[in-house]
Amino acid sequence: MKSTDVLVIGGSAAGLASALASKSHYPEKSVTLVRLETKVAIPCGIPYIFGTLENTDQDILPDGGLIKSGVEIVIDEVISLSGETKTATLKGAGEIVYDKLILATGSRPVVPGWLKGAELENVYTVPKDLVYLDAMKKKLESKKNIVVIGAGFIGIEMSDELKKTGKNVSLVELQSNVLPLAFDPDVASEAETILKERGINVLTDHGVKEILGKEQVESIKITHGDKEEIMEADAVILSMGYAPNVDLARDLEDITFNRDGFIKVDEYMRTDHADVFAVGDCAEKRDFFTRKRSKAMLASIACAEARVAGMNLYKLSTLKTISGTIAIFSTALNGTGFGAAGLTETLARKEGFDIIVGKFEGVDRHPGMLNKPHKQIVKLIAGRENGIILGGEVMGGSSAGELINIIGLIIQNKMNINSLLTLQIGTHPMLTASPAAYPLTKAAEVIAKEFWKH
Amino acid sequence: MKSTDVLVIGGSAAGLASALASKSHYPEKSVTLVRLETKVAIPCGIPYIFGTLENTDQDILPDGGLIKSGVEIVIDEVISLSGETKTATLKGAGEIVYDKLILATGSRPVVPGWLKGAELENVYTVPKDLVYLDAMKKKLESKKNIVVIGAGFIGIEMSDELKKTGKNVSLVELQSNVLPLAFDPDVASEAETILKERGINVLTDHGVKEILGKEQVESIKITHGDKEEIMEADAVILSMGYAPNVDLARDLEDITFNRDGFIKVDEYMRTDHADVFAVGDCAEKRDFFTRKRSKAMLASIACAEARVAGMNLYKLSTLKTISGTIAIFSTALNGTGFGAAGLTETLARKEGFDIIVGKFEGVDRHPGMLNKPHKQIVKLIAGRENGIILGGEVMGGSSAGELINIIGLIIQNKMNINSLLTLQIGTHPMLTASPAAYPLTKAAEVIAKEFWKH
Repeated sequence: MKSTDVLVIGGSAAGLASALASKSHYPEKSVTLVRLETKVAIPCGIPYIFGTLENTDQDILPDGGLIKSGVEIVIDEVISLSGETKTATLKGAGEIVYDKLILATGSRPVVPGWLKGAELENVYTVPKDLVYLDAMKKKLESKKNIVVIGAGFIGIEMSDELKKTGKNVSLVELQSNVLPLAFDPDVASEAETILKERGINVLTDHGVKEILGKEQVESIKITHGDKEEIMEADAVILSMGYAPNVDLARDLEDITFNRDGFIKVDEYMRTDHADVFAVGDCAEKRDFFTRKRSKAMLASIACAEARVAGMNLYKLSTLKTISGTIAIFSTALNGTGFGAAGLTETLARKEGFDIIVGKFEGVDRHPGMLNKPHKQIVKLIAGRENGIILGGEVMGGSSAGELINIIGLIIQNKMNINSLLTLQIGTHPMLTASPAAYPLTKAAEVIAKEFWKH
Repeated sequence: MKSTDVLVIGGSAAGLASALASKSHYPEKSVTLVRLETKVAIPCGIPYIFGTLENTDQDILPDGGLIKSGVEIVIDEVISLSGETKTATLKGAGEIVYDKLILATGSRPVVPGWLKGAELENVYTVPKDLVYLDAMKKKLESKKNIVVIGAGFIGIEMSDELKKTGKNVSLVELQSNVLPLAFDPDVASEAETILKERGINVLTDHGVKEILGKEQVESIKITHGDKEEIMEADAVILSMGYAPNVDLARDLEDITFNRDGFIKVDEYMRTDHADVFAVGDCAEKRDFFTRKRSKAMLASIACAEARVAGMNLYKLSTLKTISGTIAIFSTALNGTGFGAAGLTETLARKEGFDIIVGKFEGVDRHPGMLNKPHKQIVKLIAGRENGIILGGEVMGGSSAGELINIIGLIIQNKMNINSLLTLQIGTHPMLTASPAAYPLTKAAEVIAKEFWKH
């Protein structure tokens, strides 16, 4: 029987990062990572397999870092766990006894039970499974009319990538705007415009009722208010969300789950079992501000949690915790970057925050005549009572990804409108907006005018 | 005699931003901005006039914002000031009586008194003066061999732009690396490599002794250790720093100056005269960490100071102050961005900080095979005693400008190594490094290994 100090189950972002963090902070401990896959997909790169990248081999998470740091990789399936004997039973090769266990078992695509026809051939989901994705890519090559259901990040990125390969793509979304969880309608409409300009048939306020066909999908019945319509479809891609993969965790008696099915964890990423941690998509998250359960699933969140788990494995530190998930999203469509962090205006109001919103539109270069400037929008949401920034949304060029990280940092530090007005920033003609029209400060000024009234 | 509530002298970034801030926070007050120039150059864009931009007209600070907000613009020269009668005397049109005065008189290029031949024809500085710059651009068109003295930001940007137009460019720097004040040699060498690859003759560790010629410059005598050498030169550009322009301020008896010649100001940007503020290049700055006098001159610093002055004009707020200048620099060379914030390793050691340095090199996309990834370097400097981040330097693609602003924000919030290890960030294949190899976190991990030893 094999034994290890630290056992990590799962090989995607959460598993990789927690194995690395464990080894980095406790180099004297042996760390073993068990995963199903010979090769692991870079999760955020998956949509790009269907367009920009040539094949799945260009989207592989390298094992070099793990091997170099001394983590042992076992390619096998854990079929059961015991919390009492601290043992994992493998499908292929016996058992592994562990001292500390990190569950990084991830998530899997949701296929709603009510959706008739989801079992038909050429109906796909987007799992983190390279074998599945390889076969799917191959099959899609001969398809012309593709319908994507759900305009979250995966849905819009899949649509955009498939469009690049010349497909007819329809994108169906029940809410009245794309990216409805991360963005308010005003900023989301900018993304929608880009998708439409690229020739994607964007159908917001549209539901899906049924997928039709004999063996293969032939069409799809969509709804719009009271109306129903049949659309031709050679393939359907369901991007309707993901559910935590917690089958294995159920073997451990001490572990509890929240109402959404995530493994309950504390701020150190510990489960209710003292020696078992859970990180990434399978682990519970609480929203940074509302403190409510959050269903956000992002590799970046997983990596932050993984580092926290790795650091706290053998020695707790009150300074190294996740005290609420901010959920910082970003994506890019045809060279335009989008980012969101914290609460949207819509969610903040719904949750009962009294807020002030500030928005500024400019360009990401100065002078504006220089090298390919890109329209840039920053929207900030602040509490009316204290001026603290609760959330932000950005649109811009390729710097939008780091610009939203600035807003993430503002949120994490609970900075308020005064701090933003006196913010010290650096600017450069080729890299940023002008110092006199830096979008964060300008959006803050809009809020300040309202804030100082009371 | 004309009268105004707020009089701003100077039309560049500091003047513009303080006039706008004054009007924005005190809309009932009249604000008048007096400046010499009919058209004002965007200061950070000036080097680009000599290459990327076609002419100076593409680098004009727009007056629209001032006009729209109700600021009165007076194109004239203030020839004297009285603090007693609160009066500014104009060269062209009488006097203006003010209630509050904001001095935003900027800086001008330094020409060292010991430099013989600096008065020769075709020896230039780089002032914020469009008439001068226009004439200079025209004259340089017919010149082939250009020598730039001083490899600070203006020096390297001028060299790079002039090279784009096909000139033979030599860049002479006394220190052993380019950008010696903002970057350590290791990161600066990346910039130096780019300059050399572009064909610029970079001569570090080289001094200038004399500019030679009859009426026009013909050559330049440079030194390297004990050796002297004569280099042919059709034109010489002196980018040897800037000195605060405080001639007018000397008219005001109550105002004092620091040893470097800057107008002394407090954290509200007030001078020693209760109703006179000073902002931008002419105003004293103190380093955020060392508290020593700083000579940093940047439009972004000017704008932050201008906002603080504008907010505190009639009502002080202890929350709206500049309590030390971080000095966040960025630049771009041939599509590669560079940024620096806070203390360099060199300066921190020199000042007596006991520090730990962490550096990480990766790429700014993930998977690395996606769309034109760019090498990305992040270097962080932390205090050994408390782990607080004292400075950082970055190299990367076009997101480097916002990445250095993240480090600026980390410094401003006095965040430490623990906060960085648990940092929540967002990542996206097309926009950022991967979440498992995000450069800030990885550089912080290098520091943490050393930090936790004690």
